[in-house]
Amino acid sequence: MRIAINTGGGDAPGLNAAIRSATLSAIRRGWEVFGIRNGYGSLYSDEPFIPLTRQRVHGITLQGGTILGTANRGNPFEMPYQKKDGSWGLEDRSDEAVEVFESHNIDALVAIGGDGSMRIAHKLTQKGVPVVGVPKTIDNDIWGCEVTLGFDTAVTTATEAIDKITTTAESHRRIMVIEVMGRYAGWIALHSGLSASADVILIPEIEFSLDSIAQKIMEKEKKGETYSIVVVAEGAKEVGGDHFVKGKVIGQAEQLGGVGEYLEKKLSEMTGKESRSLVLGHLQRGGTPSTSDRLISLRFGAAAIRSLADKDFNKMIVMQQNEIRRIPLSEVADKIKLVPLDGDTILTAREIGVCLGN
Amino acid sequence: MRIAINTGGGDAPGLNAAIRSATLSAIRRGWEVFGIRNGYGSLYSDEPFIPLTRQRVHGITLQGGTILGTANRGNPFEMPYQKKDGSWGLEDRSDEAVEVFESHNIDALVAIGGDGSMRIAHKLTQKGVPVVGVPKTIDNDIWGCEVTLGFDTAVTTATEAIDKITTTAESHRRIMVIEVMGRYAGWIALHSGLSASADVILIPEIEFSLDSIAQKIMEKEKKGETYSIVVVAEGAKEVGGDHFVKGKVIGQAEQLGGVGEYLEKKLSEMTGKESRSLVLGHLQRGGTPSTSDRLISLRFGAAAIRSLADKDFNKMIVMQQNEIRRIPLSEVADKIKLVPLDGDTILTAREIGVCLGN
Amino acid sequence: MRIAINTGGGDAPGLNAAIRSATLSAIRRGWEVFGIRNGYGSLYSDEPFIPLTRQRVHGITLQGGTILGTANRGNPFEMPYQKKDGSWGLEDRSDEAVEVFESHNIDALVAIGGDGSMRIAHKLTQKGVPVVGVPKTIDNDIWGCEVTLGFDTAVTTATEAIDKITTTAESHRRIMVIEVMGRYAGWIALHSGLSASADVILIPEIEFSLDSIAQKIMEKEKKGETYSIVVVAEGAKEVGGDHFVKGKVIGQAEQLGGVGEYLEKKLSEMTGKESRSLVLGHLQRGGTPSTSDRLISLRFGAAAIRSLADKDFNKMIVMQQNEIRRIPLSEVADKIKLVPLDGDTILTAREIGVCLGN
Amino acid sequence: MRIAINTGGGDAPGLNAAIRSATLSAIRRGWEVFGIRNGYGSLYSDEPFIPLTRQRVHGITLQGGTILGTANRGNPFEMPYQKKDGSWGLEDRSDEAVEVFESHNIDALVAIGGDGSMRIAHKLTQKGVPVVGVPKTIDNDIWGCEVTLGFDTAVTTATEAIDKITTTAESHRRIMVIEVMGRYAGWIALHSGLSASADVILIPEIEFSLDSIAQKIMEKEKKGETYSIVVVAEGAKEVGGDHFVKGKVIGQAEQLGGVGEYLEKKLSEMTGKESRSLVLGHLQRGGTPSTSDRLISLRFGAAAIRSLADKDFNKMIVMQQNEIRRIPLSEVADKIKLVPLDGDTILTAREIGVCLGN
Repeated sequence: MRIAINTGGGDAPGLNAAIRSATLSAIRRGWEVFGIRNGYGSLYSDEPFIPLTRQRVHGITLQGGTILGTANRGNPFEMPYQKKDGSWGLEDRSDEAVEVFESHNIDALVAIGGDGSMRIAHKLTQKGVPVVGVPKTIDNDIWGCEVTLGFDTAVTTATEAIDKITTTAESHRRIMVIEVMGRYAGWIALHSGLSASADVILIPEIEFSLDSIAQKIMEKEKKGETYSIVVVAEGAKEVGGDHFVKGKVIGQAEQLGGVGEYLEKKLSEMTGKESRSLVLGHLQRGGTPSTSDRLISLRFGAAAIRSLADKDFNKMIVMQQNEIRRIPLSEVADKIKLVPLDGDTILTAREIGVCLGN
Repeated sequence: MRIAINTGGGDAPGLNAAIRSATLSAIRRGWEVFGIRNGYGSLYSDEPFIPLTRQRVHGITLQGGTILGTANRGNPFEMPYQKKDGSWGLEDRSDEAVEVFESHNIDALVAIGGDGSMRIAHKLTQKGVPVVGVPKTIDNDIWGCEVTLGFDTAVTTATEAIDKITTTAESHRRIMVIEVMGRYAGWIALHSGLSASADVILIPEIEFSLDSIAQKIMEKEKKGETYSIVVVAEGAKEVGGDHFVKGKVIGQAEQLGGVGEYLEKKLSEMTGKESRSLVLGHLQRGGTPSTSDRLISLRFGAAAIRSLADKDFNKMIVMQQNEIRRIPLSEVADKIKLVPLDGDTILTAREIGVCLGN
Repeated sequence: MRIAINTGGGDAPGLNAAIRSATLSAIRRGWEVFGIRNGYGSLYSDEPFIPLTRQRVHGITLQGGTILGTANRGNPFEMPYQKKDGSWGLEDRSDEAVEVFESHNIDALVAIGGDGSMRIAHKLTQKGVPVVGVPKTIDNDIWGCEVTLGFDTAVTTATEAIDKITTTAESHRRIMVIEVMGRYAGWIALHSGLSASADVILIPEIEFSLDSIAQKIMEKEKKGETYSIVVVAEGAKEVGGDHFVKGKVIGQAEQLGGVGEYLEKKLSEMTGKESRSLVLGHLQRGGTPSTSDRLISLRFGAAAIRSLADKDFNKMIVMQQNEIRRIPLSEVADKIKLVPLDGDTILTAREIGVCLGN
Repeated sequence: MRIAINTGGGDAPGLNAAIRSATLSAIRRGWEVFGIRNGYGSLYSDEPFIPLTRQRVHGITLQGGTILGTANRGNPFEMPYQKKDGSWGLEDRSDEAVEVFESHNIDALVAIGGDGSMRIAHKLTQKGVPVVGVPKTIDNDIWGCEVTLGFDTAVTTATEAIDKITTTAESHRRIMVIEVMGRYAGWIALHSGLSASADVILIPEIEFSLDSIAQKIMEKEKKGETYSIVVVAEGAKEVGGDHFVKGKVIGQAEQLGGVGEYLEKKLSEMTGKESRSLVLGHLQRGGTPSTSDRLISLRFGAAAIRSLADKDFNKMIVMQQNEIRRIPLSEVADKIKLVPLDGDTILTAREIGVCLGN
């Protein structure tokens, strides 16, 4: 058996642990293992595959990023190409990709990535390439999977940043707004905000009202608690307002800065207090994976090989009820896992007095 | 409503987060909250209860230990007392405890602790004190609960220590044996060992053979990997040998040093390689809780108050299938949760080539 | 003897250690110790001083921020006040401050702060208040002092952030620009950039040319090193261009975004590579002080009390040649300590191939 | 020019940064660089030198240990060999070493190591091998050098461990004894003990009396501070007693356990309080170097090459008064740098109420 592994989408801590685990598990079964570089990028180069050996994956569990490289753009069904007039277009080069797999006698693919990667994986299986998917995203928004690799580290990085910001907020009696990642889901904001004792946590699943937030801040003020910590997901949305993601207003032409900066200005005006904002940005993607992420990644990587060994293709490895399971890739497509508003984590937040913006 | 909170058994990271969450949730319901100090110790003093206010629990989520103090010994049913001849005995002072609760109009107790504390909690409910238990232990061995507060931090501390030891092992081409906690269960050893890429992981659930371990080390040597990392739970047991816990051989009079030191000596003799051992000990109990432990603790604390508000007494709060549930305290007594040998974590370890001692 | 302690300017990790050390040293001498809150703010309130006791300073060495609060604005010589038309002005209330000291029988002041605070301290001594200054700033730019409290932690925070960014830069083959603090000095940028193996380090002391930077990036590209890390001080200046500080162009009306964002855009255009930028901002001020900062802060705090005990007033405590010394506050005013271009740290950077922008 | 680099003695965080810096600096000068593996071990093998390239040293600054390997034993003047009867002896193989250098046209050696390594370096120069030494030791006891590479990280690791232990000590009202490294010097104990707010710090430079320590603990008890943290250097000595180093009593045949265990037992007996001890051991050697250690290591590595370029041989690179200098290797031999009892750090400890054992 000869298999290939690739990593796609934004990088996340734990990718290397999954690569190591899959590689070692496959080698112990007597298989040969190869890596595709830069998402699917190297498929179209002179060296589509690099050998993954025991030595190559030594000591990589604690390294952030991915030794294979990744790419946000460039999937076999929509590869960018430069037109004659210099502009860029997209073309379907998936047949070519399938040929490369075949001509190199690659029997199966382990595709580690986010929702986009799972969609591509599903389409590749429809073209006859046996694939098993491993769900990765710091945003934790992949449907069907209780926890994705990279999420715990991102939450930890965000929490530690808010911890640091809190001491300075308290010393200066300021409002501090920290904008975290998460795209359309509030997982990172909710978990890091709670862990770091934030006063206000704003997530895309609950539209926020500036009045509610300002009221919370002024209530604290009256109790002699003269600073406030506001954690906001990049995709949070004001009641009747627009979604922001990655510093841009979705559906609006003009650039306003991100939601963090917006809140900094508005809350300062409304409360008369000094305020500052901080966008954590790419910090949340990088660094040594947390212990929990290392373990999940190792379990996911080994489980993917087990699935291949069982000839159980076209599946995604998931963690459900603290156990490894497999679900059809077809089930995952075009779905997203949001924070459930009736879950006990939201309940806990309300019960201990966190303002959720409404 | 007036409630009391106490913490019992060895301390664990996350206790303060649970205290804070329970306190804030109760205060928001208009209840009064009090703390019992040093396990049940302060019940028999002049000041059995101290008030827990919003201000008192401010900023404690990230502090290790417990602001209430704890005690390994001293439960109302077996309080130590000094006899006339100077020696120590145990006496049942539970009636007195119940009186103290009553005379101070305490309506219910949130008991945060390990298996011992849950046993005491169960007995107190039988005496008419409404109790809800919150499971705490770095050992993760409480029956009925997928994860206990304190476990993730202990694993993280152990993993980071093994990471550090690995760089020095590699530089000196040594065998390094790291002994971790866990009593009769191998959770800490298994999770930290895997996360830190250990070569050998020894847990109480699998009796180890020195020959298997030495063979693994010599196989690595042949591949040019001239160092080995052995992670051993304090309660690991040799085939046909004795259990060690906390540096003592169980069931044997003589003191041999712990299992870590035993392995250091034996493996050095058998392989001819230099070896060193390290007992992580109390490091694993202390420090700022990990993000995951903070969140679990906050959820547990709020859930305990919710259970009290529902008049659902004599329960323990648990995490099952990633959800908060309640199970009867009576179910928990005298049971222990060991590492399941058919789980995918053990499978992963074997598949990526970790020696589990057999 | 009755003394007061205050902290002024932006907060820095280590302030609490200095407060603790000064307090304990003074108490052991039988003195009484008081804190002024929020810079000099509380002097004009009903409660100008709060008692600092052994218990109050217990356990604060490892807390970020300052238990006394601080203020960026508001010194006795230039206190903000609201005019009748609603606008704000500044007035000299230093006589009032001196009266408050006198009426409360405060014999001396330990003023912990940056260059602004040292200037105020000097002016207070001229009004007859005995003062000893302790130099604090994460920027490390106080004249006469080899190292200021807060600097090592800020560098550590910046370095760890760059470490995290590097793994994601490498995985995505990007240029990553990290903007760090430092005002007009390049200390944080130089030390963190070197420690984190940055490719380009831009400091205010050396004007940068975009061509040099782009050339460095393209040279790496040719060697197959397809990512680059650019660390830039907020006050870095382009040859013939403007200084940027804190996201604003100094001396220019229009808002351009900070130097980090500027470099991100320009370098992407010039090299054709994807690039991202990150402003670390207030992260660098906060959090638990590093071991080195804790030690320096403790030494500074005790040395300030020693200086008071020696009746050696109007001095600033400094570290010179690894020893504690005292220099006249008058020497410090209106000077700034920049990175020496002939020092061995700059030399090291050049010798190992770091591009310094010229 | 062709140069070799080796690392000797116990490993220390920062070695790889020094190797990288020296390698890059030398390559930029057009030199060829080689590594000797395992101290001087590989000199006597078939492959005495391995090439050090830009690529080989990429990304190693933040890795603990040494990519070259090291050895506690085995210097060219005293190489271990096995006698005919199976026992081991030492022989002088330095002529052979010199031949290996010559036959491979190695022009000079950068020897990174502790006092033992500096002694060897000095003897090699006397045999005609041009050497520049770089001082490395976590113990910080090398004469002539204010700070050695590895020290700051060791202190940081020890401080963080004591921080963790403190929360559990406080929760359980215990005496906790933490034994740290340092051989005959108290640098690690003093710096980590102060940084972590220890109550008692015992260093080899000051003989301790058990009575003084017990008295300090009981004084705290009276003030309601019911726990105590004792940090002890492995080489601390009781008044009229024996030195302990590395768990052995120096000059006494019998094995007693280390000084930490000794204090645990004695102090518990004397005070009637529960106590625990912990030996940090090899944790202190390992892991990612602190920012400060990375910077010092980079500066030392580059300075060593600068010294070679200046043809200034037989020198050791040192940090004096925050500047890089060179001193003759001959000056260093057989000297040790102890904690100065009249320095301000000791004074600070006394002034803030730390018990130094006397």
